[in-house]
Amino acid sequence: MGKPLRIGMIGYGFMGRTHSNAYRRVPNFFQTEYTPVLQAVCARDADKVKAFADQWGYASVETDWRKLVERKDIDAIDICTPNNLHKDMAIAAAANGKMILCEKPLAMNVAEGEEMCQAVEKAKVLNTVWYNYRRVPAVTYAKQLIDEGRLGRIFHYRANFLQDWTISADLPQGGTALWRLDVAAAGSGVTGDLLAHCIDTAIWLNGDISTVNAMTETFVKERKHTLTGKVEKVGIDDACTFMCRFGNGSLGLFESTRYARGHKALYTFEINGENGSIKWDLHDLHRLQWFDYKDEGPLRGWRSIHITDGDHPYMKQWWVPGLQIGYEHTFVHQVADFLEGVAKGESIGPTFRDALETQKVCDAVLDSAKDSQWHNV
Amino acid sequence: MGKPLRIGMIGYGFMGRTHSNAYRRVPNFFQTEYTPVLQAVCARDADKVKAFADQWGYASVETDWRKLVERKDIDAIDICTPNNLHKDMAIAAAANGKMILCEKPLAMNVAEGEEMCQAVEKAKVLNTVWYNYRRVPAVTYAKQLIDEGRLGRIFHYRANFLQDWTISADLPQGGTALWRLDVAAAGSGVTGDLLAHCIDTAIWLNGDISTVNAMTETFVKERKHTLTGKVEKVGIDDACTFMCRFGNGSLGLFESTRYARGHKALYTFEINGENGSIKWDLHDLHRLQWFDYKDEGPLRGWRSIHITDGDHPYMKQWWVPGLQIGYEHTFVHQVADFLEGVAKGESIGPTFRDALETQKVCDAVLDSAKDSQWHNV
Amino acid sequence: MGKPLRIGMIGYGFMGRTHSNAYRRVPNFFQTEYTPVLQAVCARDADKVKAFADQWGYASVETDWRKLVERKDIDAIDICTPNNLHKDMAIAAAANGKMILCEKPLAMNVAEGEEMCQAVEKAKVLNTVWYNYRRVPAVTYAKQLIDEGRLGRIFHYRANFLQDWTISADLPQGGTALWRLDVAAAGSGVTGDLLAHCIDTAIWLNGDISTVNAMTETFVKERKHTLTGKVEKVGIDDACTFMCRFGNGSLGLFESTRYARGHKALYTFEINGENGSIKWDLHDLHRLQWFDYKDEGPLRGWRSIHITDGDHPYMKQWWVPGLQIGYEHTFVHQVADFLEGVAKGESIGPTFRDALETQKVCDAVLDSAKDSQWHNV
Amino acid sequence: MGKPLRIGMIGYGFMGRTHSNAYRRVPNFFQTEYTPVLQAVCARDADKVKAFADQWGYASVETDWRKLVERKDIDAIDICTPNNLHKDMAIAAAANGKMILCEKPLAMNVAEGEEMCQAVEKAKVLNTVWYNYRRVPAVTYAKQLIDEGRLGRIFHYRANFLQDWTISADLPQGGTALWRLDVAAAGSGVTGDLLAHCIDTAIWLNGDISTVNAMTETFVKERKHTLTGKVEKVGIDDACTFMCRFGNGSLGLFESTRYARGHKALYTFEINGENGSIKWDLHDLHRLQWFDYKDEGPLRGWRSIHITDGDHPYMKQWWVPGLQIGYEHTFVHQVADFLEGVAKGESIGPTFRDALETQKVCDAVLDSAKDSQWHNV
Repeated sequence: MGKPLRIGMIGYGFMGRTHSNAYRRVPNFFQTEYTPVLQAVCARDADKVKAFADQWGYASVETDWRKLVERKDIDAIDICTPNNLHKDMAIAAAANGKMILCEKPLAMNVAEGEEMCQAVEKAKVLNTVWYNYRRVPAVTYAKQLIDEGRLGRIFHYRANFLQDWTISADLPQGGTALWRLDVAAAGSGVTGDLLAHCIDTAIWLNGDISTVNAMTETFVKERKHTLTGKVEKVGIDDACTFMCRFGNGSLGLFESTRYARGHKALYTFEINGENGSIKWDLHDLHRLQWFDYKDEGPLRGWRSIHITDGDHPYMKQWWVPGLQIGYEHTFVHQVADFLEGVAKGESIGPTFRDALETQKVCDAVLDSAKDSQWHNV
Repeated sequence: MGKPLRIGMIGYGFMGRTHSNAYRRVPNFFQTEYTPVLQAVCARDADKVKAFADQWGYASVETDWRKLVERKDIDAIDICTPNNLHKDMAIAAAANGKMILCEKPLAMNVAEGEEMCQAVEKAKVLNTVWYNYRRVPAVTYAKQLIDEGRLGRIFHYRANFLQDWTISADLPQGGTALWRLDVAAAGSGVTGDLLAHCIDTAIWLNGDISTVNAMTETFVKERKHTLTGKVEKVGIDDACTFMCRFGNGSLGLFESTRYARGHKALYTFEINGENGSIKWDLHDLHRLQWFDYKDEGPLRGWRSIHITDGDHPYMKQWWVPGLQIGYEHTFVHQVADFLEGVAKGESIGPTFRDALETQKVCDAVLDSAKDSQWHNV
Repeated sequence: MGKPLRIGMIGYGFMGRTHSNAYRRVPNFFQTEYTPVLQAVCARDADKVKAFADQWGYASVETDWRKLVERKDIDAIDICTPNNLHKDMAIAAAANGKMILCEKPLAMNVAEGEEMCQAVEKAKVLNTVWYNYRRVPAVTYAKQLIDEGRLGRIFHYRANFLQDWTISADLPQGGTALWRLDVAAAGSGVTGDLLAHCIDTAIWLNGDISTVNAMTETFVKERKHTLTGKVEKVGIDDACTFMCRFGNGSLGLFESTRYARGHKALYTFEINGENGSIKWDLHDLHRLQWFDYKDEGPLRGWRSIHITDGDHPYMKQWWVPGLQIGYEHTFVHQVADFLEGVAKGESIGPTFRDALETQKVCDAVLDSAKDSQWHNV
Repeated sequence: MGKPLRIGMIGYGFMGRTHSNAYRRVPNFFQTEYTPVLQAVCARDADKVKAFADQWGYASVETDWRKLVERKDIDAIDICTPNNLHKDMAIAAAANGKMILCEKPLAMNVAEGEEMCQAVEKAKVLNTVWYNYRRVPAVTYAKQLIDEGRLGRIFHYRANFLQDWTISADLPQGGTALWRLDVAAAGSGVTGDLLAHCIDTAIWLNGDISTVNAMTETFVKERKHTLTGKVEKVGIDDACTFMCRFGNGSLGLFESTRYARGHKALYTFEINGENGSIKWDLHDLHRLQWFDYKDEGPLRGWRSIHITDGDHPYMKQWWVPGLQIGYEHTFVHQVADFLEGVAKGESIGPTFRDALETQKVCDAVLDSAKDSQWHNV
């Protein structure tokens, strides 16, 4: 089964499950020199972490992440904790010479992110951030089409990430389940949680964002806090919209909210170039919409491409044409690529440094929303 | 405004409105040598036909169709009556040397249709049948693509026409509004009303149908008759399905019903060839779905083409790209083409003879449903 | 045919055709006390305006609009000229006591628009502006649903209007065909041409916009001018994006461009409320997307409603369920409503005053794009 | 990890992979009393089966299936071989008291299937057949809706399964990769391979099929045989269409082909009832289309339901709303249900006996295609 890559994971929530699944599936579907070994999982609640380890087959558990990062029998640390814990964990892991796979967003802000980048660069450890949507086959394929120059000069990029799960004012904030609504744990609301995904993809596909202008809103101003039991001010952004300009001269438009009734996790993007356009939508992630101006005039139309063929990215590892894969496979792909990177001694994108670019945009967006001015990134 | 073509129309129901509208619209949108003149409209109810004439601008009215067809000041007779009246009217009109535009289906059966064909051919009068869907721009364009040989060898043709408006058992049959449910007036149910459209398009696009095998059903066995006031046996087919083979070796599959809950007038067809496929749907009639096998492999997908460009059939007469037309325009197109035919002294398709081919398939279908055997057309 | 309402139309371009068609169709489909009479059409080119009058049945022509507005045999002036001519024409028409139907946008700017409003209000003449999309049945129905309070508190409104017809740098600017690219004739680019539609609908559906922040871009900086034959600076905005806040506390996001490859005239809007959401798209204008949170949980989904039933706005005048109407019908509806207004002695929306609100947003948007600040409307 | 259920699998092709994956995934996502143990995999090629065992973690290999079914350390035999081998393997497995999970179709024909049913019933061993599409969450949910009586009286059922991968006449038949084209190994073409799925779902959702009338075609009459190297007659059906009547009085229409250019694996079904309708499509398997006649009149429309919520079948085990699962999950669900059945000592559907019903329809269809008559099932 190849050389072992021993994983120590911190956190066992939703992301803990997606990552664990990815480690376990890779060897069945991808031929890689290294094979993940689920060496340890760490969380504060001993019983719960033990149950999680049993379900997923981790060989051991820890309740103190500092011990985990010091263990000699671990090669890579996977950070699946709330955002406010990323920095210390990553820096400690780097100091112990561990490779790092960190959940997104990289950090609470650019300052933290810069420290983290310097730590991994100084320690020369492989690192990546789980902006998993880069590895939806349709998105990866969009990247190929753009890199081949098929779109020509780019005029527009637009993306949104619309949800509707926090509309009820009765929903509390904070605690294990709802830390994303608690500014102390999350740093921001939809900006770091959802827009960060949109921004990572956008920079990857369309290059740097140079300047932004944003608007945020918190529709429900107070919510009961799960930990204190008291009604407290909501510090996160419920919705965030921003306009921007990319370095290549194209215009960007981004929107995210958790108050768009009817949308569960509608991440969409569209890019319009001189010679073609591309659209994609997470709700039907196995499809790519493609418009090619080079098609014969009266036969031009948006093509709905079912990205399930063997010559589509990652797909020869899975099933046969017409049979779709799902959300979780994006993590499998990132692990497979990470393992290839390990074999070559190279980090795969998005690295910490790549993710810092996204963080810079997020910070500029939040700053702009505060002072109502355009901000350079 | 060009040379007058004086129209005498019999009937003023739903089809009377669509035809009248077509005659009035053509001169505004098409440059034709002949211009329709609304000379007379005929129906038994004097008050109602007068009101209709006022609304649509007919110059005169008649209450006896035999008088209408004998009038010297009329060039063309438009037959918009229930199916059981087509034959006598058409034969009389032909005998008087009138051009004829007849609603579909051509007749109650092949025998009637054959008589009608002989009448117009003997009288050498221009004739056409209102299978209007041939002139949906997307459908006309499909015909062009097929005729250019872009699909290669054809394997499959399938069509259906699904409605849901007769599900309630409380709906009566017969009378002005509901003659389509009365076998004495309509001859058949969905076969002549809906499948006839599907068959006309199919023959036009894919050539002759050689053999058929059908199944029909009448879900509601008795309905009150509007004219008698009594509950009477329902003689029409509520649903009809048939399999067939085309002369070109391809397989066909057709279905029609008025019991498909959720579909208002869902006429769809699809044709699959070696090199490409086409789909169309009346509910979004301004779109054509096109799959081209010659597209680059991983970029193959169904194109949704918005048939609203100046180089799409008929569309340069209307608006600008992106602005759709609707149902009624199909009749305008048929009138415009008919007027071109008049200028050339030629009938346009579908002629009575063309429509007789459809009638032959309908009769074979109904025969097959009765004796459960395959029938040659 | 009812009392005559004698129309004098200025201009005979694309909008001249849509309006003429509307006047001619109304009497066939709507029962109104007043009936439009095509009394005169005016344009500078005598031959062309004569040909247009012949095709559409105008009783007379003029080549000087000042004469037209003074004619005693005309009740209403319809202004279909480039934007820079609206003001003088409207003011003169009002001074002559004519009702006015003016193409959108109302004026070149708020100052002009205010003068026009004062003129019609002083003259007490009925007036309306052709923001025709309010009368797409699906859009009118959306208004009903919102007014019934079905959406609850509104969180988000977003709209865009995407086209791709000016991407080629070889396209000239100015002249009869391309005055929309000439800032002297049009006043602005996509803002007045396309966003104005989005803004009119938005205000109608969601109330006043209080503050805006915009970004514009001119992708092709110079184009040959049709009139001068010289390459000249392009003064219009090729693309315009803005964020806004509505008076009801909801957030708005608007985008328009003529550089979105693959979109012909993709006007879409979406509104998200606490209890439901609505989406609509001009490319399939006969459909409304509706999400109702009150639906049973696991059965919640976006409904695609085919707005072709007799109980949908305006639709009982047309055909039967499932048979779609098109773009041009929106103008027919506006004329029908205008005639009802005439019978009551009331202007129908959008009035000049309503359209001035849209103009205020457009001006604030263009100002914001210039100075990079938020602007109150 | 619960009690072991030791699996011995025969075959390691495409289905071998889907089943192996299912066994491995279940313990991570479902809480079941029994846990699958990959005890052995069997195939004739020793090297290849060893490689497969390594990749999927099987503890041992066999090259003679008769040895496998006799092994004492195995509880359940999973048959993933070509159809012509099912019977002997199943009977031998039953004779050895093994539970059996058999790929579909059950057998080469009804006679074989009947023998197999008697064998498992006599041996009283748990048994199931891998008609996996029953366990697409959207399909399972459709079953719930129908069973709750929400559709009322059923009028129509239609299904098709369209592919396009065998259009090229250069494709050979037979051998490991292409046994589905070899009648000796497969028994039939699309009837057993694709229509069998449609029939299984149809019977499950809509009850027994009583009578059928079919048409088949073999478009490419000869293909080179991979094993003999010679061009040989093609014995399978390339396309098969049939009409039928269900026991509940509804009409059915089924079509399958591998010559529908543009469709990869388009399995769709639709069921129309008095009060509602349901549609589903394998190409977007995570969506269900639902039409409810009880909705308010003008707001009726097809709902597109994203079947990814915790209260949708199976979905609480996976991710969060909006995040779709894929094809392979259907097998995971079948294993999870099978394990629950083991705990209760009950077979889950579709059992061998259930699958025999599908086989009866397939045989009647093929008989009908031969003699052109209606056949009772």
